[in-house]
Amino acid sequence: MDTRITPKPAYAELSRLQVQIYRFSHFAKMASWDRAAMMPPKGNEARAAAQAELEAHIHRLVTDPRQEELLARAEQEPLDELERANLREIRRDWRLANALPASLVEAQIVAGARCEHAWRTQRKANDWKGFLPNLREVIRLAREEAALLSKESGLARYDAMMDRFEPGMTSGELDRLFGDLKSWLPAFAARVKEKQARETIVEPRGPFPVAKQREASLAVVKLLGFDFEAGRLDESTHPFNGGVPEDIRMTTRYDESDCTRSLMSTIHETGHARFEQNLPRDWLGQPIGRARSYGVHESMSLSFEMQLARGRAFVGLLAPILARAYGEQPAFEPENLLRLLTRVNPANRIRVAADECTYPLHVILRYDIERPLIEGEIECEDIPALWDAKMQSMLGLDTRGDYNNGCMQDVHWSEGLVGYFPTYTLGAMYAAQWFAAIRRASPDLDTRVAAGDPSPAFDWIRANVWSQGRRWETPEFARRASGETLNPAHFRKHLETRYL
Amino acid sequence: MDTRITPKPAYAELSRLQVQIYRFSHFAKMASWDRAAMMPPKGNEARAAAQAELEAHIHRLVTDPRQEELLARAEQEPLDELERANLREIRRDWRLANALPASLVEAQIVAGARCEHAWRTQRKANDWKGFLPNLREVIRLAREEAALLSKESGLARYDAMMDRFEPGMTSGELDRLFGDLKSWLPAFAARVKEKQARETIVEPRGPFPVAKQREASLAVVKLLGFDFEAGRLDESTHPFNGGVPEDIRMTTRYDESDCTRSLMSTIHETGHARFEQNLPRDWLGQPIGRARSYGVHESMSLSFEMQLARGRAFVGLLAPILARAYGEQPAFEPENLLRLLTRVNPANRIRVAADECTYPLHVILRYDIERPLIEGEIECEDIPALWDAKMQSMLGLDTRGDYNNGCMQDVHWSEGLVGYFPTYTLGAMYAAQWFAAIRRASPDLDTRVAAGDPSPAFDWIRANVWSQGRRWETPEFARRASGETLNPAHFRKHLETRYL
Repeated sequence: MDTRITPKPAYAELSRLQVQIYRFSHFAKMASWDRAAMMPPKGNEARAAAQAELEAHIHRLVTDPRQEELLARAEQEPLDELERANLREIRRDWRLANALPASLVEAQIVAGARCEHAWRTQRKANDWKGFLPNLREVIRLAREEAALLSKESGLARYDAMMDRFEPGMTSGELDRLFGDLKSWLPAFAARVKEKQARETIVEPRGPFPVAKQREASLAVVKLLGFDFEAGRLDESTHPFNGGVPEDIRMTTRYDESDCTRSLMSTIHETGHARFEQNLPRDWLGQPIGRARSYGVHESMSLSFEMQLARGRAFVGLLAPILARAYGEQPAFEPENLLRLLTRVNPANRIRVAADECTYPLHVILRYDIERPLIEGEIECEDIPALWDAKMQSMLGLDTRGDYNNGCMQDVHWSEGLVGYFPTYTLGAMYAAQWFAAIRRASPDLDTRVAAGDPSPAFDWIRANVWSQGRRWETPEFARRASGETLNPAHFRKHLETRYL
Repeated sequence: MDTRITPKPAYAELSRLQVQIYRFSHFAKMASWDRAAMMPPKGNEARAAAQAELEAHIHRLVTDPRQEELLARAEQEPLDELERANLREIRRDWRLANALPASLVEAQIVAGARCEHAWRTQRKANDWKGFLPNLREVIRLAREEAALLSKESGLARYDAMMDRFEPGMTSGELDRLFGDLKSWLPAFAARVKEKQARETIVEPRGPFPVAKQREASLAVVKLLGFDFEAGRLDESTHPFNGGVPEDIRMTTRYDESDCTRSLMSTIHETGHARFEQNLPRDWLGQPIGRARSYGVHESMSLSFEMQLARGRAFVGLLAPILARAYGEQPAFEPENLLRLLTRVNPANRIRVAADECTYPLHVILRYDIERPLIEGEIECEDIPALWDAKMQSMLGLDTRGDYNNGCMQDVHWSEGLVGYFPTYTLGAMYAAQWFAAIRRASPDLDTRVAAGDPSPAFDWIRANVWSQGRRWETPEFARRASGETLNPAHFRKHLETRYL
């Protein structure tokens, strides 16, 4: 008979180790935020050395060989359902942390840093030839990584790469989801463009001083329920969401020639931030207490930015905030502002500047290239021709010779980040599915939002997404939240309702 | 014959460990700054847990038992003079880290936190009775600490406590230095007060908006040579100097009713900051690359604040900065500003608000109490009566019953911090000694400063203090810098020149 006080010693030990890792990661995350938002330039060298030391220590903890035996023993212990889910996620994290030899990881860091550094100037110089040899090395190592992850997980190579960001998603499933989009979205975007060409839009008149933009951003972030007692909004070159769930550090960047870009970007980050701020407190420090996947995380930023903030009801709330900041003007009439914020531009070549309608086409294009690339079906040399062909067929654009605004525009591949792009569009589809469910649960949603109260949306999200962490695997999570697994029909319905 | 590539393997190993400790401490220091200057309130719990985890890890490194053997072996290795000095400091740090059992350190943290927490309200309530039992426990543990440190070092108990902050300083030496001050300073302060009573002073007229104070502070900090590429100036409840030598994080606090308090406090912090910013870069991470002692550190803040910034020449530079910030007014005429910044007020009961003349008396009073207290010659109960008697004899003040502005005014004892107070006045004496040497080396110092160029002072300090780190033990360091060990005559001369 087992007379120990705790009947789950192996699980308890594993949990303690997770907490320890979480606490050290606290500093890694805060230091990254500080580096981007606060650190003066000469602090960089000492910071980099300190971060490397800390990361090495965290790596020792996450790969601690004791975990293998503890995991096996914990499987036999009398765990409740939540503990079992947590154990599943601990095992997953441990598996990923140990899947790659240190020599490969180091080689990838070196090659990725070299390629990314050169890319910064090569991109501007439209220098594909200069970029290619660096990219080849990065992709060679990414293929090695994919082969190891595939062997370890039994998944196809690309699927094994994507699984790190979107557990359980496969290219078979993506082919189905993206195939659906490809079948109607290009024609749809062209149709919306034609419709919008007949509309009159008044552009906002500047100046848009940074101090005023800051005020407007803070007002909107507050309206969206961000808890300023548990986080901050600062500035950095590239907006991001940093910090820890207990203390979120959002950043934005203000452009004095544009009064909505930074605002919409901040709303996007607020969606990520509130997810983190509302992750289940009891599980903090455990893998089960983290976000389900990158796609689900993106579904939160896009719920805030696309589903909520670019909808007619919320635009009615943004209008007076902009008028207060920059003075009354025709551009800030709600109807005009709505048109400004829902303009579709298929002629745009840049993913990060793309509108809601054409964004998925940019993602699909990348997926259609990076999947065969990592599987060894095509080579780096083949990328520009494929890029041009797909841009032509999906968006009707001639991008030949324009590497800067073409296949060299993203940082991802230069760093060996393959399998990540799909999460952006999975997020958009999940967001549409969540809002379909929210509207079923609260048919008066728009009336409430228009009256200044978006809480029905937040309440649903809290109950169904924020609070769930990684409790369920993704299909089950989606089913429990919205009654079905990911269904691209909701995204189509959303676009048709908003744009036709 | 020794054929190893490096002939100093033990020393090399010890050095690597110091660097590792330094890198982990980087996060501890940045997190402390962030906590005070940036962190939102709800971040506190996670931060405290993470900091405890990190501190425990750092403690494991600094007490790593391998060091004992490495230290012994390194002593036999062919080290150069700098390495030998570094080894001496490594040994000292290791000795201090291992001098106390973990159980005592923990008990001290708990008792100190309890006493300090209660003190915050008890002080305001003038509640000595409520404070006493907590203080007794803190002092009981401090005596245990002193006994262990004494046994380990062979020093007297109080001296062993003080040695942590001011290596090599003894109460015998302090009795000589402070005895000198006691013999003339009370009468001197009274005489200055009488002289100043006959002068007219115009007070500055507000308002002094925070934004303007910030501008003025930045201008002065720049004038003082702080490198903003390697540091920041932010705000916190209590001004302090945080961060790391490569990236200094100063803070200040603005009071809208006063335009000089925060400014002088920022100048003080800038003195600390420039020391850190100019510590020898080659030795960063090694004990030899740190400041010699707390007294020497304070000599830098007081060199900036007292020697330089409250002198006639520099006040002439401050005047236009203040006039620019708050508008021309009679108070900012240089002669009047000088009087404002050198006002002596023996009736003040508060150490941190004390002027340059009476500050040492506040320190001596505390030394005269905490030394016998830690040696067991008096008890906590005896403090108020001793305090009152010494305030009466040195400053002519009746403080009976006023615990709030009396023996309960400092946080130090409530946290068990005994042996630290003397460093404030040692710093003031060193600063006077440095400036005597600077004036010998640059007889035109005041002319240069008045013309906006304080660089002769900075050049001397760089060569003689900043760059020296812990290379020499303190008496040798002072001799090399200024031709003699600490000599209180320079401080007396300084006060007589400025105030009579």
